[in-house]
Amino acid sequence: MSRPWNLTPADLEALAFGAAILGPGGGGNPYLGKLQALELMRQGYPFRVLPFGEVQDDDLVVSVGGIGAPVIGIEKISKGDESFRALRTLEAFVGQRATALIAAEIGGSNSIEPFIAAAYANLPVVDGDGMGRAFPEVQMCSYFIYGHQPYPAALADEKGNSVVLGKVFDMHWLERLARTATIDMGASAGMALPPMTGHFIKRAAVPNTLTQAINLGRAVMDARAKRRSPVERILEQENGVLLFKGKVTDVARRVDKGFAKGQATIAGLEEFSGSQLLVDIQNENLIARREDQVRAIVPDLISIVDLESGEPTTTETLRFGFRVAVIGLPAHTLLKTPEALEVIGPQAFGYPDVVYRPLARP
Amino acid sequence: MSRPWNLTPADLEALAFGAAILGPGGGGNPYLGKLQALELMRQGYPFRVLPFGEVQDDDLVVSVGGIGAPVIGIEKISKGDESFRALRTLEAFVGQRATALIAAEIGGSNSIEPFIAAAYANLPVVDGDGMGRAFPEVQMCSYFIYGHQPYPAALADEKGNSVVLGKVFDMHWLERLARTATIDMGASAGMALPPMTGHFIKRAAVPNTLTQAINLGRAVMDARAKRRSPVERILEQENGVLLFKGKVTDVARRVDKGFAKGQATIAGLEEFSGSQLLVDIQNENLIARREDQVRAIVPDLISIVDLESGEPTTTETLRFGFRVAVIGLPAHTLLKTPEALEVIGPQAFGYPDVVYRPLARP
Repeated sequence: MSRPWNLTPADLEALAFGAAILGPGGGGNPYLGKLQALELMRQGYPFRVLPFGEVQDDDLVVSVGGIGAPVIGIEKISKGDESFRALRTLEAFVGQRATALIAAEIGGSNSIEPFIAAAYANLPVVDGDGMGRAFPEVQMCSYFIYGHQPYPAALADEKGNSVVLGKVFDMHWLERLARTATIDMGASAGMALPPMTGHFIKRAAVPNTLTQAINLGRAVMDARAKRRSPVERILEQENGVLLFKGKVTDVARRVDKGFAKGQATIAGLEEFSGSQLLVDIQNENLIARREDQVRAIVPDLISIVDLESGEPTTTETLRFGFRVAVIGLPAHTLLKTPEALEVIGPQAFGYPDVVYRPLARP
Repeated sequence: MSRPWNLTPADLEALAFGAAILGPGGGGNPYLGKLQALELMRQGYPFRVLPFGEVQDDDLVVSVGGIGAPVIGIEKISKGDESFRALRTLEAFVGQRATALIAAEIGGSNSIEPFIAAAYANLPVVDGDGMGRAFPEVQMCSYFIYGHQPYPAALADEKGNSVVLGKVFDMHWLERLARTATIDMGASAGMALPPMTGHFIKRAAVPNTLTQAINLGRAVMDARAKRRSPVERILEQENGVLLFKGKVTDVARRVDKGFAKGQATIAGLEEFSGSQLLVDIQNENLIARREDQVRAIVPDLISIVDLESGEPTTTETLRFGFRVAVIGLPAHTLLKTPEALEVIGPQAFGYPDVVYRPLARP
């Protein structure tokens, strides 16, 4: 059996790259978190990955990460120990120490954030997450979808404030109370979710997504080095669908109740010339419509990458003039069950009339 | 030395009456809380008052009460155990049990609320409070003005949600984080403030305000029974100043960020005929101006009572046509020190140019 293995700086680079593609479009840009993690690594802090199969039933696993509108993270740089202090606040409340951490979402900056808290706490990070991508709201974690008690949870900000959500009525109240506290804290904070047993993790977490993100990042970097098409490597590696190639002609954006919302308009290039793709955004890319036809929809992943370099764009960095490929990636099976679709399907995002259909090959 | 003494139903009636006068205008109507307390008393729950002089240095005293816009309390009736559950959540967080409770504010419903939590917890309530009246914000407690650490604190709502403010940057952050959590919880919640030692209470709490409120209520009820003027009895009992007699001609009101704000216009009657009094409201009555001259200002108390019955009005029940006496009552010395005026003087309420002058006899 493989024991916890050490993340290398190269793994971290690949993870940040792959996680941004798996965002998709959201979850916050992993760049700043990666720099911080590399610095901690350099200082000798431990960066260990616990293979999914190595999780023990009686492990106490805490999911930690950042919460807030990703656009804030660009201007308001985190102090760096927010998630760690959220973890310690939670541990003090429950009177138990975590034995491992896990990401709430593999997409974006929350793929790296658990490693930073884990470095400070000297804990391994489980190879898995609660979304297999990124989602804008806390209850959208598979942990809650598959019945974990939504409390207690803890929040901490860079000013030294920390809050425990000691008891909440349901997972929607967890999201609601956490969200307003976060807005108060300056629209970004570190969060520690209710402790879970290893037994539960094995049933409800999306497995092996850390290695998935690292391998994806490596594949793209390898394609670049070999001057192959990164877009084709992503499609190959992730069994993805090329939805569109085009030039971004407009990005409408607003921050509403702590969320980045908006829509991107993309005019077709090459074989898509003369056609137009609209992508709706709520922190992540939610739905891609071509000539009023839905081509991909949440929970499947809609990732927008640079047409030449394969560099993923996040919804907050996407801009007029970008030449992009829009890629559909199939969501993990755990996200497509009827109970999951209730929480993370089109209806949960305000599309009452759109029926979820799994990503189709053209 | 006197030991804890038992509150009687008559004491409770008098307390509710006196506390409404000491509101002044705010703190929530004590009526619903009184009914609940009377019912608990009937069921045999303990209602004990701990004399201020009996507080021991090593007592662990927790201040509990309701938080929220008072106007909400009229339509959204509390479940009744919110403050008690906030207390238990706080106790679980600090790992210690309270030995006594104390009011955050003697004014309005928060004079009664600690007794309800104390009944469930089988604890006495200290004869004192943190304001000697009511104020709209948490940091306006003498406890924080005189340096008590503003964390941890706990909130609980009627839906079963509870939140611990584990650590806050300062007392303003306590108010800020508590206020938004409260708005989320439906604009009213029970709150337990950071545990205090008896030693600290003896230095920083406003003493004997429970008996003050009870005696004030009794005096008015006695005046009514003897067909003497209740207004005169209030002035006598509390060393007050008659600021105005008149008819309410307008009350402008709005709920803004969880606060009831507004202004009452009163047209003079009897010796005040031809004159007009304007009273600014922010949960409580803040400033009384007669012909542009400030006649009384926060932290001194501005109480509006029915001209005939002496029945106190709260800012949310005040209405066009009410014939009222407006009474100024001097604030306790603890509220008028320079450090107190910084937090509860005119500037703290948004009157940059008004200098606080203690209530003057005409």
